[in-house]
Amino acid sequence: MSPRSVAIVGATGAVGRDLLHVLAARGFPVGRLRLFASVRSAGERLPFRGEAHAVEALGPGSFRGVELAWFVAGAAVSREWAPIAVAAGTVVVDNSSAFRLDPEVPLVVPEVNPAALRGHRGLVANPNCSTILLVLALWPLHVAAGLRAVVVSTYQAVSGAGGRAMQELRDGLAAAQRGEVLAPQVLPQPIAGNVFPQVFDFQPDGTTREEDKLLHETRRILDLPELRVEATCVRVPVERCHSEAVTVSLERALSVAAARELLARAPGLTLCDDPARQHYPMPIVMAGCDLVAVGRLRESRVFAPGLTFWLTGDQLRKGASLNAVQLAELL
Amino acid sequence: MSPRSVAIVGATGAVGRDLLHVLAARGFPVGRLRLFASVRSAGERLPFRGEAHAVEALGPGSFRGVELAWFVAGAAVSREWAPIAVAAGTVVVDNSSAFRLDPEVPLVVPEVNPAALRGHRGLVANPNCSTILLVLALWPLHVAAGLRAVVVSTYQAVSGAGGRAMQELRDGLAAAQRGEVLAPQVLPQPIAGNVFPQVFDFQPDGTTREEDKLLHETRRILDLPELRVEATCVRVPVERCHSEAVTVSLERALSVAAARELLARAPGLTLCDDPARQHYPMPIVMAGCDLVAVGRLRESRVFAPGLTFWLTGDQLRKGASLNAVQLAELL
Repeated sequence: MSPRSVAIVGATGAVGRDLLHVLAARGFPVGRLRLFASVRSAGERLPFRGEAHAVEALGPGSFRGVELAWFVAGAAVSREWAPIAVAAGTVVVDNSSAFRLDPEVPLVVPEVNPAALRGHRGLVANPNCSTILLVLALWPLHVAAGLRAVVVSTYQAVSGAGGRAMQELRDGLAAAQRGEVLAPQVLPQPIAGNVFPQVFDFQPDGTTREEDKLLHETRRILDLPELRVEATCVRVPVERCHSEAVTVSLERALSVAAARELLARAPGLTLCDDPARQHYPMPIVMAGCDLVAVGRLRESRVFAPGLTFWLTGDQLRKGASLNAVQLAELL
Repeated sequence: MSPRSVAIVGATGAVGRDLLHVLAARGFPVGRLRLFASVRSAGERLPFRGEAHAVEALGPGSFRGVELAWFVAGAAVSREWAPIAVAAGTVVVDNSSAFRLDPEVPLVVPEVNPAALRGHRGLVANPNCSTILLVLALWPLHVAAGLRAVVVSTYQAVSGAGGRAMQELRDGLAAAQRGEVLAPQVLPQPIAGNVFPQVFDFQPDGTTREEDKLLHETRRILDLPELRVEATCVRVPVERCHSEAVTVSLERALSVAAARELLARAPGLTLCDDPARQHYPMPIVMAGCDLVAVGRLRESRVFAPGLTFWLTGDQLRKGASLNAVQLAELL
């Protein structure tokens, strides 16, 4: 692939910084690199391959000559600026929720539904982080035995709420050392020494947006529009890496041994499942890893046939930046 | 009730200390108080109603004249010493797992199955902490609509592993402030900045003992020997208070509004369910509370009919010491 003129919109955020890391690590053919962020961050410099690159504020002509842009600045910025970029001829990989349920916009995890990229119209959507981790594990099980229903409880790191939430956790833990409780600014509740069942806003029906994403995005990516997905999304005092406790109801019997083999071979996954040696996925091991780890695989006690398992993946990496770069590689 | 001669075996542990607090707070008629612990702790003094009480090591004559004893020192101590106490005429409330599945020993949550205490033979068992919290919420739903199956993921505080685990969390968080990872001594993994799907030991089939307790103890307490209970038990960096994400399959339809009313009226529970105001149960609010809080109540997306909810309770309090004192009050 010849070097491309690329841009990152939201470069100074947690995902933007990780994206730069992934681009360098994977040897992505970056030609000209433009970094965009809010006016507040303009003028900052971010390192890439040993050089400092200035961060610019977005403007009407920003996308002239840019072949490919990653949008990692949130839904409002994407809704405003992604159409402008596409109109300028830029192919946009959007990490926000803005276009994920738009039937005209492919929603893709490269290991699962790469064919959905065909016929894109200049804009492709990167799924929600907890959804990416989940569908990587669901897909091989679905292919082998047919998914009927999914119950998932998440243990989500603060990185999912961005770099400022990561700092809020650090500040909260430091305050706890002094016996103080830090009033939250970014997260809805104090996170140090706490867990709470709210990831992003509530909908009128009492579910959160994150729980809805796990339902609707999973249906789209797996092309199972009727799939039942019950999600409870919970924030935990972990800096990066989401974990998920998952139970699936299957159409056809699938032994634990067979499922273990399938998951061990599946792209994007690593099997970490040796309870006797206390080996199972967990955040302190998986931070910074490209793969999603699956373990604690066992027969379901509620669904027959069914399986239960546990997974952990770095939500900044495979949950966001890595998947976004893989999409660009496929495009 | 006239003052009783009582004893606490394991008085210096996290549950033992909380038990003293609950006895004083509830005005339990304590006459003579004997405190027992390991030889290592003998000679320590613990305050109760403004007086310091010396901790003794257990010996053959320890239970002479003791009418009632709480055992909160773990299964090995209970297996060895509870029969000795019963033989000496002491009624034993055992907080360990030693006798919980013994058909001769009542396993009781006072709000749920108090009648099971009838005909006890001097020994009654206090259920596992995460089970007590769960059955308090399951019981009113079962009475109204019939339980078919339960899927539960836990978010368990380190207090469930005792006072030394609580210290290990504090030390781990302090070490993390210095950029260090503390090697675990009590818990199986580092807990600061981490979550891991292991609460107590693994069984040969890949489930943990805690997950098995949630199945077998729930069946016994609810008198539903065929109930399907799928549990994934996870340790989180929280000092006290377990939380649980619960989905239930029901025999008969039960609206969210009706379930909310039932749970609000149920003994031992408090409803904390106003998502629009971001009110839901969480550890930093529930620590030290006698009640178990239930919230995030909604229709299940997987089971029809079915409900999904979230609960938080202080595992040292209702999950252990309070339930044990309530049992003694009933006896």
